[in-house]
Amino acid sequence: MKSPIFPKYPPALDDTQTSYLLTNIKDWSIAHGLAVRPQSAFISATVDPSGVLATTAPVTIFPSLFPRSCFEQGRSIQTAYNRLYSAIARDEDWLGSIVQELVGIDDFITKLWEVHMTVKQEGYTQSLTLGLFRSDYMVHVEELENSRNVGLKQVEFNTIASSFGGLSSKVSTLHRYLLRTGAYPANKDGSSFTESSIPQSQAIASLTRGLVAAHTAYGPSKSDKNLCIIFLVQEPERNVFDQRHLEYELLEAHGVRAFRLPFARVLEETHLNDDKTLLYTSPHASDIQWEVTTVYLRAGYSPDDYLSGTEWDARLHLERSRAIKCPSILTHLAGCKKVQQVLATPHSPHLERFALKDDIPRLLDTFAPIYPLDKSQAGLEARSLALNTERAQRLVLKPQREGGGNNVYRKAIPEFLKGIPESHWPAHILMEMIEPPPQDNIIIRNGELQRGGVICELGVYGVCLWESSTDEEPKGRVLENWEAGYLLRTKGDQSGEGGVAAGFGAVDSCCLVDV
Amino acid sequence: MKSPIFPKYPPALDDTQTSYLLTNIKDWSIAHGLAVRPQSAFISATVDPSGVLATTAPVTIFPSLFPRSCFEQGRSIQTAYNRLYSAIARDEDWLGSIVQELVGIDDFITKLWEVHMTVKQEGYTQSLTLGLFRSDYMVHVEELENSRNVGLKQVEFNTIASSFGGLSSKVSTLHRYLLRTGAYPANKDGSSFTESSIPQSQAIASLTRGLVAAHTAYGPSKSDKNLCIIFLVQEPERNVFDQRHLEYELLEAHGVRAFRLPFARVLEETHLNDDKTLLYTSPHASDIQWEVTTVYLRAGYSPDDYLSGTEWDARLHLERSRAIKCPSILTHLAGCKKVQQVLATPHSPHLERFALKDDIPRLLDTFAPIYPLDKSQAGLEARSLALNTERAQRLVLKPQREGGGNNVYRKAIPEFLKGIPESHWPAHILMEMIEPPPQDNIIIRNGELQRGGVICELGVYGVCLWESSTDEEPKGRVLENWEAGYLLRTKGDQSGEGGVAAGFGAVDSCCLVDV
Repeated sequence: MKSPIFPKYPPALDDTQTSYLLTNIKDWSIAHGLAVRPQSAFISATVDPSGVLATTAPVTIFPSLFPRSCFEQGRSIQTAYNRLYSAIARDEDWLGSIVQELVGIDDFITKLWEVHMTVKQEGYTQSLTLGLFRSDYMVHVEELENSRNVGLKQVEFNTIASSFGGLSSKVSTLHRYLLRTGAYPANKDGSSFTESSIPQSQAIASLTRGLVAAHTAYGPSKSDKNLCIIFLVQEPERNVFDQRHLEYELLEAHGVRAFRLPFARVLEETHLNDDKTLLYTSPHASDIQWEVTTVYLRAGYSPDDYLSGTEWDARLHLERSRAIKCPSILTHLAGCKKVQQVLATPHSPHLERFALKDDIPRLLDTFAPIYPLDKSQAGLEARSLALNTERAQRLVLKPQREGGGNNVYRKAIPEFLKGIPESHWPAHILMEMIEPPPQDNIIIRNGELQRGGVICELGVYGVCLWESSTDEEPKGRVLENWEAGYLLRTKGDQSGEGGVAAGFGAVDSCCLVDV
Repeated sequence: MKSPIFPKYPPALDDTQTSYLLTNIKDWSIAHGLAVRPQSAFISATVDPSGVLATTAPVTIFPSLFPRSCFEQGRSIQTAYNRLYSAIARDEDWLGSIVQELVGIDDFITKLWEVHMTVKQEGYTQSLTLGLFRSDYMVHVEELENSRNVGLKQVEFNTIASSFGGLSSKVSTLHRYLLRTGAYPANKDGSSFTESSIPQSQAIASLTRGLVAAHTAYGPSKSDKNLCIIFLVQEPERNVFDQRHLEYELLEAHGVRAFRLPFARVLEETHLNDDKTLLYTSPHASDIQWEVTTVYLRAGYSPDDYLSGTEWDARLHLERSRAIKCPSILTHLAGCKKVQQVLATPHSPHLERFALKDDIPRLLDTFAPIYPLDKSQAGLEARSLALNTERAQRLVLKPQREGGGNNVYRKAIPEFLKGIPESHWPAHILMEMIEPPPQDNIIIRNGELQRGGVICELGVYGVCLWESSTDEEPKGRVLENWEAGYLLRTKGDQSGEGGVAAGFGAVDSCCLVDV
């Protein structure tokens, strides 16, 4: 038997040590805004009708172990991913052909495409697009006869509403604080970790600089108003502090004003000038108009956000505006699972269309095999894998659209597929499960401790600002491109889904180890 | 009729404006640690057994108006007050005579004195004392025939556990943020205030520098251990974030480690070496001893903290240690109301004993007349005032000891005095009520809004580090002395008590106006 990848970790805690850590985490997190609004199952609206309470965000007590080489791999490849996805978003013809395959299968994708086509026919007024991306990975361990491969495999690439940048910066500061103050006991075997083992996520500062880059690139006001950025948000939003940290950084570090605009109020609170300039009026100050440079979508990414025609009208309204969209509809579409699938289907020709030659081997390295469920040769082969109970053990079935909560795991796959019409199968993709190295941790949720085996997902943020194609630059032009900090999300290894805000999983940071 | 002192204020709010302010205050406060643990009447332990929830600290929506001249008066006189009270704390004979007058009347004061005497007989091992003081004032308006005097009158001088330095820094940042982002509407009459109207309280940074000054002056370790500061605290503590902000600043800005030690656990977790060096062991890391340079008391200031002999043993244990006390017993005693009374009794000879000649007129200016209730000539005259229902309307009766919650106001005074034995009367002092100028504001508490007339109390923090008397310096020596930021506490003008943590009043900041 091979030696385990990770050292014995985390150190054992007695009751006093646990209580000391818990007290320190509870106090530090509220003092520094590592917080969420409580779930209604925890605190009902009857108890707190005005929603004034907050609670520590679900966090791990210890930073989880993460191979240093994988962490560096994820950070160093981010600019290549930014280039790749911005190139896809600029290739309307290719994206159109992908969307065609989903007509009649995924209404949401189809509707998004229609919004794009409407604006295209009118003529886009803004050639710049901002991407605040997050590429999510797990560590995959492949045991060979005399060696072992340890590397990152991509879970998904988020082109819209990439969340937890705010809290990720805070949680690495928390873990470094706990370490620095001796709140963690040494491992029994004498091994220990140091502050330099826990990289500080710079996501707040770095994502904010991305918004500022767009804000600046927008240029001077067209309407002689003050300029602002809009955060398009859901309401209510439990994860509000995550977003607010970016808003506060915009103001404090850059003097840039941002407003939170609930998706449902877009048509009431914004207005398009004849030249498509987007003007915003906050209801608290109805005599003041602002010109919007950038619309940062933290809503509108999932079909659940579109309850009526109004939200589609709102999305169209924003898309046709002169404001820089983060992201545009085409960029949103570039993040659909179908795109990830066609790139990662073994022997796919598509990657070469978008990626720099030098980037391709490194990108391929991070792809986990993904299969379509259509009637192509690859699709038919995938169907037989999915329906085979034993083989399905190593697979996950995902819908092609954004937003968590609908994945089907392992042995549940055959039954699930048999329960829906075969015509709906192509709306899903099939992925090889990534098999991360086992480790333990403790998650704090609403003050309760959950101990046991955990699975970690690394998210690397990326900022990319680009110009769409012009006559001189038929492939468009990337103006800004940088890696923008990281997030570790950790969940119990028994739960299927990893979304922290949804009540599963916790925000975490990396304790880097050489493996 | 004279014109009102203050302009019309605050601006009127419609429902949308109120809701916008409320949302912004709720989010900003949690993101920045302007928070308290909820009262059990709001959130019971059944709902949140592990105490993970927090709520916005009670704050005013607007910074309250405050005369600029009074604000400058309070700040500029603070170093004189620091000198005065450190001189009193170094004059053991004089303090002894004051305590003598309270024997049999105030058990708490008597007990504190006994602790001091015990340590004195053994011999004090530490000649340095740290004061983190707070001098509390109200604006007093005196209408004369052709003019008006507006000045500060001192409510009390706190020599122990001066609280809200942490939250005061945060609330001025909040109010400046709301102003900067246009969350406040303009006054209907066109007048407005600017960020420079709202002075930023520097209490976190400045009080922390005081603790660092003591920590440094302590010198190198006597026991070859790492050095630390102890925050002596109550448990549970709803106002924990106020204290934590100082602890975090100690670590982040100065690399100084502090531990929270509940008063009830002093004897378990600390130990005196033969040379009276104070050693601390945190229960979470029982194999590590720290040498304590400074004990910062945020507990032990009130008789309620001494439930058994154990707490008195603990106070003695700390007092006899080599650690610098913030404050020492003598300094604690210097803050008793009796001292304030004998200084402020009209024609008192005592001030000249302690204050610099140049400071005396400025100090006298801030004294509100205070009368003893003993059998001296002044005391007998005061008794007849206190028992006169009409005259009592302008008086407040206060116990001589620290800690709020026991003041008797105005017409309730005669009845109160008649209800207790006459022998207990000298345990109280009588003060002229200070009559502040009327103004309105809105207080947010647990998300609910309380509108109406308010009364403000300005607290000015002071740091003072001194050496007790030696043969060369019989009056001792002040080593550090500075003004250390401000607090405004605001309560509805119908409530008698102003303690924010006790559930009355709110933290506030000043909107300076020229009057």
